[in-house]
Amino acid sequence: MQLSYDRWMELDPNCSIARSLGVLGERWTFLILREAISGATRFAQFRDGLRVAPDVLTARLETLVEHGVLVRAPYRDPGSRTRFEYALTPAGRDLAVVLASLMQWGDTHLPRADGPTVRLRQRGSEQALHVGFVDSEGHEVGLADARFERTPAHPAY
Amino acid sequence: MQLSYDRWMELDPNCSIARSLGVLGERWTFLILREAISGATRFAQFRDGLRVAPDVLTARLETLVEHGVLVRAPYRDPGSRTRFEYALTPAGRDLAVVLASLMQWGDTHLPRADGPTVRLRQRGSEQALHVGFVDSEGHEVGLADARFERTPAHPAY
Repeated sequence: MQLSYDRWMELDPNCSIARSLGVLGERWTFLILREAISGATRFAQFRDGLRVAPDVLTARLETLVEHGVLVRAPYRDPGSRTRFEYALTPAGRDLAVVLASLMQWGDTHLPRADGPTVRLRQRGSEQALHVGFVDSEGHEVGLADARFERTPAHPAY
Repeated sequence: MQLSYDRWMELDPNCSIARSLGVLGERWTFLILREAISGATRFAQFRDGLRVAPDVLTARLETLVEHGVLVRAPYRDPGSRTRFEYALTPAGRDLAVVLASLMQWGDTHLPRADGPTVRLRQRGSEQALHVGFVDSEGHEVGLADARFERTPAHPAY
């Protein structure tokens, strides 16, 4: 991720949630990422999956490329002009946890009557996965046992 | 969570990420939740923690109450008029995982030079926690081993 210092400061120097939302803090951005994680790479795939205005889609894809979440590469179908496709970077793939946590919350607290349209499963098995807090040994820790603790770097420490 | 069917359909009948963002899909909403999880309950605490315009704060608190993320209760300090305070519901507390996943992504991909201002720790210990994918036995599963799988209820199944 390459950000100029000025651009970074605009995002919020003290809160990583606020900085993340400086890149992601908008409904269409998350839905573009949903499409990317589902395999969309081409402008037309994002547009058809989202029914978003082309100028909005162009602007959001641009922001995600600028922040190193997507990378843009040219491609050319036979008989067509050169176009661009968008692939998730490693930083973009890391957003799967954020999207999965949003999905999990929606499935729990805003459920569909006939069940979820997407489930999280372990690759190579049918086992259901969920998103949770995990300790350094890879064991889940319950919500009640997790706390957000300010460090000395916090302005209100 | 109590939502009329019409309101629910507006949010998006098929995608729980989109429905969640129908409630949460805006920068201030996440930052209000950050303050609530840090212990803010009173309007002045949210306002001072966020430096947000009062009318925007009022509107966002209202939306979160309407969707069952916060609950509003009257209180009265000696010599003052009755005011309201806002407490997280169980659905609101469940958003800790979403906020923690945003924090983790920001700390990884948009880090501060002198380290994070907030860390996730296990209550009653100094052990660091993170957010990850977990199987039904409570063991972490790596990002590469998690997949989003469409169910027969998905419109494009």
